[in-house]
Amino acid sequence: MIDMNRTKRRAAAIVAMTFSAVVLSGCDGAVDAESGSSAEYSGPAIRIEKQGSFAVGGRVLGDPNTSSLHCDHGVVEYQIPAERRAVNLLMWHSASAGAWQNRWDGGDGFQSIFAYRGFPVYIWDGPRVGRANWGCAATNYEPGEGRDQSNFVAWRFGTAYPNWFAGVQFPKDDPWAWNQAMRARYQEFDTIENAQLESDAAAVLADQIGPTVALTNSAGGLRALLTAMKSDKIVGIVAYENVGYVYPQGEGPGTPPGPFGPIEVPLEQFQKLTRIPMQMVWGDNTDKSDRYRPTVEDSRRWVELVNKHGGKAQLLMLADEGLTGNTHIPFADMNNVSVADLLSEFLHDHGLDARASETVR
Amino acid sequence: MIDMNRTKRRAAAIVAMTFSAVVLSGCDGAVDAESGSSAEYSGPAIRIEKQGSFAVGGRVLGDPNTSSLHCDHGVVEYQIPAERRAVNLLMWHSASAGAWQNRWDGGDGFQSIFAYRGFPVYIWDGPRVGRANWGCAATNYEPGEGRDQSNFVAWRFGTAYPNWFAGVQFPKDDPWAWNQAMRARYQEFDTIENAQLESDAAAVLADQIGPTVALTNSAGGLRALLTAMKSDKIVGIVAYENVGYVYPQGEGPGTPPGPFGPIEVPLEQFQKLTRIPMQMVWGDNTDKSDRYRPTVEDSRRWVELVNKHGGKAQLLMLADEGLTGNTHIPFADMNNVSVADLLSEFLHDHGLDARASETVR
Repeated sequence: MIDMNRTKRRAAAIVAMTFSAVVLSGCDGAVDAESGSSAEYSGPAIRIEKQGSFAVGGRVLGDPNTSSLHCDHGVVEYQIPAERRAVNLLMWHSASAGAWQNRWDGGDGFQSIFAYRGFPVYIWDGPRVGRANWGCAATNYEPGEGRDQSNFVAWRFGTAYPNWFAGVQFPKDDPWAWNQAMRARYQEFDTIENAQLESDAAAVLADQIGPTVALTNSAGGLRALLTAMKSDKIVGIVAYENVGYVYPQGEGPGTPPGPFGPIEVPLEQFQKLTRIPMQMVWGDNTDKSDRYRPTVEDSRRWVELVNKHGGKAQLLMLADEGLTGNTHIPFADMNNVSVADLLSEFLHDHGLDARASETVR
Repeated sequence: MIDMNRTKRRAAAIVAMTFSAVVLSGCDGAVDAESGSSAEYSGPAIRIEKQGSFAVGGRVLGDPNTSSLHCDHGVVEYQIPAERRAVNLLMWHSASAGAWQNRWDGGDGFQSIFAYRGFPVYIWDGPRVGRANWGCAATNYEPGEGRDQSNFVAWRFGTAYPNWFAGVQFPKDDPWAWNQAMRARYQEFDTIENAQLESDAAAVLADQIGPTVALTNSAGGLRALLTAMKSDKIVGIVAYENVGYVYPQGEGPGTPPGPFGPIEVPLEQFQKLTRIPMQMVWGDNTDKSDRYRPTVEDSRRWVELVNKHGGKAQLLMLADEGLTGNTHIPFADMNNVSVADLLSEFLHDHGLDARASETVR
């Protein structure tokens, strides 16, 4: 299936890739470094002071003295760079951690870009997902032929496989990238129950690590909204292509709840969302997609609703900023540094990018 | 279940931990840095030139033109430090990636220690495990009450829960560490079929990334032995508490194969294992454990067999080196820097620690 020689050359090329000029754009003290051409390159590196992973939240089944199971925790992988900024970034995927770790062609993902820019970065596998799959309830996985083709549509590479959108920010002629993208998934549970479970654990995380901006993709957005109602340490949300929302009771669309909501909550709870800046970000070609045309409209109406209640929400269409061809996972797209620059701008505009050393806490 | 204030203080303390003097021992150009006491600490950091993750190996089910699924790949997370050494370290867990990422108390794990020491580090989730759980076959997970207590025995914290071994290298009075340890697991598949599946994918990885020493824990050991027979890019194996072996046909123990082997192969295949240095490492208290007393004897006999066939295998009892109280997962134990120093010594003795810049490839 895979041309091994090509794959091998690519793996070598990825190892040789280092932090290039584009990654440095938008940083304090940016250096105009060239892309490395060998593994001996000794240009700017990310300086990590502390990294690791830990479990958070969850329950204990049974009697801890005799027969028990610790389960339903989330697992977060973190990196604290030198001269860190005060606010953490929590990266919440809806496909795989890999989507935050890499650009589609193997270039730097948001994890590296924002660690380089000084932010403590936390990548989240919520309860029952990935490295947190030691759940408190039984789960089943069934392989599904056709998921490749449904990814193609869900990730808005085109309207139907294999009809790519013109100018799509995916390296569509690169078999290595296609193979990686189709393997950049692991089992998820798109139910309201799981959204509550994941947000319970993430709220514990935020309470532990302090002020945190949640960056989410797709179904992660609903989970971050729930988390922000459970912990006041969530100080901002930037949701890439969020597909599910929380509404005040009686103000929702009135449709029955599906895997991504809607969820209605008392107004008092909803108002916790009005205290923080939120940006709902959408890629390109949504108007050509029967699937995404209505979700963008939902998103627009929801932003208006939040702001009507005194909130600070914003709809950001990347195409309006001159970024074209973005998919459902813009932070992994070929122009992800431009997407990152818009995020840096959002963080700066809302006072969320101070260095920890400049901050009185 | 968890004292939140304590947990919160601990999370803050972990963020404040930085690379302390002990982490630096055994490094070129070691700096006698003090442990940091605040997040503003700006002492030595790990310098990462490139990091990310990628999928490797696997199959495609169905017709890629119409209805398909990419599955059964492994997922590897990697960090390439500045001034990298030529040989990669592949960290193969048998419980969770977290065991390689952290010491039991949240201090630095082997990932950080060896990235700091200049080695490209790859952490492996094999096919169907963790972030690679997008398999080609159905899988089921059932929560099992009592797994906490069986971990206690399997990880050799003591003979029976909660009777800790005296002097055990686990912070046994620290509820935070206990909670983390019991959550440092995710679903695995201890079958020969899975061992072949995982080693198939890992062999593709080694062929891609080049000369690699596999570091394994428990059931990962058998998988690395299989991998070394499938790729000549595996140039060494250090197996922490390996519980399964490969034998030449007719030279095995003659017991029926269980979840960890034994596996018999033609002598010609077995001899591929004699070309590389291998170290079988055991912690302390194995003699007090009905479970581990026989496995150490298996290990000793296997080392003799490999060497009888011209190999370079070695049995290393950590206690013989003055390291006491080590568990089944010595690289996460409180004295893991001393365990790391022995690994650095092994790598040096076998010419596996040259800088890439010093190496003609």
